[in-house]
Formats: sequence, C-alpha cells, structure tokens
Amino acid sequence: MKKRLLLAGLAIALGTGYTLSAFSQVKPEVLVKQRQAAMTLQGKYFGPLAGMAQGKVPYNADVVARNAGYLDVLNKMPWDGFAESTKDLKDVKTAALPAIWSEPAKFKEAQEKFQSAVGALVAATKTGNEASVKSAIAEVGKGGCGNCHQNFRQKD
Amino acid sequence: MKKRLLLAGLAIALGTGYTLSAFSQVKPEVLVKQRQAAMTLQGKYFGPLAGMAQGKVPYNADVVARNAGYLDVLNKMPWDGFAESTKDLKDVKTAALPAIWSEPAKFKEAQEKFQSAVGALVAATKTGNEASVKSAIAEVGKGGCGNCHQNFRQKD
Repeated sequence: MKKRLLLAGLAIALGTGYTLSAFSQVKPEVLVKQRQAAMTLQGKYFGPLAGMAQGKVPYNADVVARNAGYLDVLNKMPWDGFAESTKDLKDVKTAALPAIWSEPAKFKEAQEKFQSAVGALVAATKTGNEASVKSAIAEVGKGGCGNCHQNFRQKD
Repeated sequence: MKKRLLLAGLAIALGTGYTLSAFSQVKPEVLVKQRQAAMTLQGKYFGPLAGMAQGKVPYNADVVARNAGYLDVLNKMPWDGFAESTKDLKDVKTAALPAIWSEPAKFKEAQEKFQSAVGALVAATKTGNEASVKSAIAEVGKGGCGNCHQNFRQKD
C-alpha cells in the first residue's frame, strides 16, 4: 500500500510532461526538444576542448578526460529524436535538413564517424600525450561535429 | 601547418556558439539553456522508468539498465548552470526558484540525494531483481526529482 501511494505520487512530483513518454508515443515537438538538448550539451562539453586544441584556453587534462567521457555517453542520445514524425513540423525551429530523412545511411554513417572520433579521444586521454589528445579533439570537431553539420544541418 | 589549418577550421565547422564557452565567460542565458537541456534529457530517460515502476508500460530490464547508466552521467550536468549570474535574468523563461541561491547547502544536499538515488538504481539493475529495481526507480522520482522540484522549482 505504501509503495502504491509512492508510485502514484511520482507523476505529480515530477510535473507535467516528465512521464508522458512512458505512456504514449512521444510528441514530435518533444523529440525535437530532446535532440536539441543533446546537441546543446555536446556543445557545452566539446566547446572548451576545441578551445584547448586551438590554444585559446589553457590545456587541462582532467577537464578533457571528464568531458570526453561525458561526450561518449551524450553521443548516443540525439539520434532517436530525428524520427520521421519530426520531418515536416510547422512552428518548431530546427536546423535539421531534409537529407537526414532522404539519406538515412549517410546520416547513420556520420553519427558513427562522430562516435568513433569520440572513442578515439577517450582512448587518447588515457595515454596522457597532449599532442595526441589535441589531434583527437580536432578530429571530433572536424570529422565528427563538422562533417555531420556540413551535410545535415542548416548553416547559421 | 596542416594541423594548424585543421584547428583553425574547427570554429567554422562547428558553427556559431559552439566554441564560445571556451573563449569567454559563458553567458547567463546559455547557462540556463544548458541546465534546461540536462533536465530535458533526464526527463527523457527517466520518464519510461517511472512508467514501468507504475506498471503503465511493460518492464524492460535492458532499457532500465541503459537509462539508469545515462542518468548516472546526466545527473552531473545541470548544477554549474545555476550560477549566480543566472539569478535575475529578464526575458529568459525559467522555473528556478530563488531558494537555489538563498539556500545553497540545501540545494546541494538535494542534488546529492538525487545522485545517490540514481546510484542505488544502477546498483539495483545489477541484481536483476525487478521489485528492487522498481523501488529504486520510485525513490529516484520521489526522493530525487520530486524532492528537489518541490523546493527549488516553480510548480507547473
């Protein structure tokens, strides 16, 4: 009984929307919000590393290792948000290009290239070799983020 | 030379905003966006678990283990976004309550309670005991999300 009450209280405690995805198809606009959230966090944790690779902020091996580990998890999160249902949304601001849905194999390949570049960065952080780490950061930026944005994201 | 060109291309490849945080203090509105992104993703990966604990969606041990692992990383990400600089923002929609800044020890304690509940959930997923997992999910929702939202987030 206590447990039933506890569980019944969950939805209330969490507020509107939090448990919605468990009960029904996730709404397209929620999928867009979730995939953009993953991109925002990837930007948060990659930004400083790009700055270090460019010599614009001081190199900090601990921050690189932490952020690389975060990116290695975040890079699993955006893709299911690019569902077909999000293709023709009105009133939702998104930079997603139609190529995402017309060239799914190429889009998947770009995701994997990014994930593999992040994997290489994680491996590089374990060597403690700053030059290797900086090269690996540059490859995440260019071969990962940049390559995918080039083909599948509207230019700013 | 090749490497320098590669690095110089990074900022362009990534688009506006991505490398900004490496070069300057992160703008308060960006901090809000980043912390909200972390909350959005926590909602994405906790929602289905809450549904399972409530018996509203079929229990899937693999999904629980995966999402619990994601939450165990995401739960490190929102907190630095609650910087003092974000306290009195105009034109930015946020549900953050002033208690976040007036009761920092209590806010920190709420974060740790959430993180510890997620840690217990991760541990429970390794036992393979469905009832324990469901209890642990309920505790993340009530003692973690709910407890913190109760005190530090505007009601919907």
